[in-house]
Amino acid sequence: MTKPAVTFELVHTCAASGARAGILHTPHGDVPTPVYMPVGTQAVVKAMTSREMKEIGARIVLANTYHLNLRPGADLIAKAGGLHGFMAWDRPILTDSGGFQVFSLAGLRKITEEGVRFRNHLDGSELFMSPEVAVAIQEKLGADIIMAFDVCSAFPCDEKTARDAMERTHRWAQRCKAAHKRPDQALFGIVQGAFSRELRIQSAKVLRDMDFPGYGIGGLSVGEPKDIMYEMLDALMPEMPAHKPRYLMGVGTPDCLLEGVLRGVDMFDCVLATRIARNGTVLTGEGRLVVRNASYKEDFRPLEEGCDCEACQHYSRAYIRHLLKAGEITGARLCSIHNLRYLERLMQGARQAILEDRFADYRADFYRRFDMRGAFNRGMETA
Amino acid sequence: MTKPAVTFELVHTCAASGARAGILHTPHGDVPTPVYMPVGTQAVVKAMTSREMKEIGARIVLANTYHLNLRPGADLIAKAGGLHGFMAWDRPILTDSGGFQVFSLAGLRKITEEGVRFRNHLDGSELFMSPEVAVAIQEKLGADIIMAFDVCSAFPCDEKTARDAMERTHRWAQRCKAAHKRPDQALFGIVQGAFSRELRIQSAKVLRDMDFPGYGIGGLSVGEPKDIMYEMLDALMPEMPAHKPRYLMGVGTPDCLLEGVLRGVDMFDCVLATRIARNGTVLTGEGRLVVRNASYKEDFRPLEEGCDCEACQHYSRAYIRHLLKAGEITGARLCSIHNLRYLERLMQGARQAILEDRFADYRADFYRRFDMRGAFNRGMETA
Repeated sequence: MTKPAVTFELVHTCAASGARAGILHTPHGDVPTPVYMPVGTQAVVKAMTSREMKEIGARIVLANTYHLNLRPGADLIAKAGGLHGFMAWDRPILTDSGGFQVFSLAGLRKITEEGVRFRNHLDGSELFMSPEVAVAIQEKLGADIIMAFDVCSAFPCDEKTARDAMERTHRWAQRCKAAHKRPDQALFGIVQGAFSRELRIQSAKVLRDMDFPGYGIGGLSVGEPKDIMYEMLDALMPEMPAHKPRYLMGVGTPDCLLEGVLRGVDMFDCVLATRIARNGTVLTGEGRLVVRNASYKEDFRPLEEGCDCEACQHYSRAYIRHLLKAGEITGARLCSIHNLRYLERLMQGARQAILEDRFADYRADFYRRFDMRGAFNRGMETA
Repeated sequence: MTKPAVTFELVHTCAASGARAGILHTPHGDVPTPVYMPVGTQAVVKAMTSREMKEIGARIVLANTYHLNLRPGADLIAKAGGLHGFMAWDRPILTDSGGFQVFSLAGLRKITEEGVRFRNHLDGSELFMSPEVAVAIQEKLGADIIMAFDVCSAFPCDEKTARDAMERTHRWAQRCKAAHKRPDQALFGIVQGAFSRELRIQSAKVLRDMDFPGYGIGGLSVGEPKDIMYEMLDALMPEMPAHKPRYLMGVGTPDCLLEGVLRGVDMFDCVLATRIARNGTVLTGEGRLVVRNASYKEDFRPLEEGCDCEACQHYSRAYIRHLLKAGEITGARLCSIHNLRYLERLMQGARQAILEDRFADYRADFYRRFDMRGAFNRGMETA
């Protein structure tokens, strides 16, 4: 048997919590964990270049199978040398399978055991996705880590729907595994089970037995209260194999990142940071700052004192507010740079705290400083 | 008498043409000429950061009094340390007086000898601009070079309208000069005269006698055929003082830049490069390339072979086309970077050719390679 494409090295588990520091070894380099993965839905992290992504310290980015298959198409990307060549990014890439998007973006879905027939959101034409199709597309895209094609359910969700979706997800995970051939990629399974502790535990166990090199935790952050999400994590995490990476999909508010880390999650992704940036909201250690607001009109301080990002090193809140009000692209850029750098620093700090067995203090300090009032509504948490 | 804020050093006049190489000395550094000045209408060159502007080689940028006075306001910018501090740009800046914008953007104008009463294009409220107001605003903005408040006429334009506008421009130039107090700024006069050789010659002479430290050539590239613009330049340039910089306002297609240089123009500005970039059109040595077009779908070459810009060093036409089609900001950014770098290289090459007395060959080589068919319609030439 050949060496797996992606391996996870568990470096340290924090003495006072379940928080873990590790290293994800991939064909395109190592990723220290816990890690927030910026989202490049359409093969670009919105408003950013690859160079800037390296400057903010990103070690891995995510791209979306659903979107890229529609435009520009997987064959084109394969011809460009895969996603790494196409988007000029030589560090690791993870592709989502398209499962979540088929259920959240596409129209007129017909779901059978074979797969999902749907109308795509761009031109309405009918398409079909199945475990085999999703794997074939992801093999063409050529990411280091690819995800199984799963069935997502909404919040709230009745028990039977949740169980059916979970069981189908398990059968589809097996089909993805059978279909996947590229030796330089790792295929992660996805735990489902909606908002039932029992189903989550069952799903974690079934997936664990399938022995994937890593696991996504899907179907959370879809509109449920945060407490329910944390409850699900509390239930399922003990069933996850310790020496495999755990990826909480679509989660990325600062508080949820730390709560995930506390419970042993290693990887996260979320569009929140870049989406709110384009609307003029930035993340700081003290909480959310809506720089578009009139109160920053004559505020010549940086977005966040002490931040080392390009926006904070050179520009004032007053200037960035002006750019946003004037509809200038550069305003969206500077806020995006800052938010991505903020999350990168948050996670680097978390990792260091784990290594020094003081993650509980790190988290407590975050809550002490970060003003949570109205910080993030549920809609913003959804990828 | 104190040393003028801005001085022009005429380094060399090309033996075989009127093309000049010089250096503009300003409080924020030297600008080798001929120079294309990228336009930062709202205190930002659209889609760019200051760092990127330096990387493409820009030595001076332009900003607009009309826009900045409306938003965010000159007092705010003054509090930020002037435009240099506000936009984090420590190289020279030139502000346009707002004359052109009052006549092209604002509504319901009432022009008297005192000034212009108009409704601004943002909220429709009534404002008043005059030579004194335009100078006062530009003193607050704090650019190295500021422009006199002039009266623009359209194309075509009858003789009487053209003469009245020109004569008022001359009287207003005198009022600007009287109003201007900041010793660290240079105030340039503006030659008008519409499309009459006689008026252009007369205007050049009158302005010359007022002894400004530099001269704008206004009212061209407003919709007239290029031949008429060149005819006007041919008429007026011999009347311009040799040791003062000459700035052809609002002109910036590659061919018009070289034609201006040939006739002894030192400075240019135009929004064309960045505007067409955002629409997916780039400039190359071989002509215009509409990278949005389907023909570039699988073209993995850079925008322009041999170009040293960030876009051409890392990304393919196919990728940039994908970004543009997908509505990604990064697509507009990469095209903007390339177009600005293209014009910078074009002008650097022109300067070197002038210094080596081979500008005529440089220009001929440009036309030999550059496909002019449908290259630029008149609308695109207008700032």
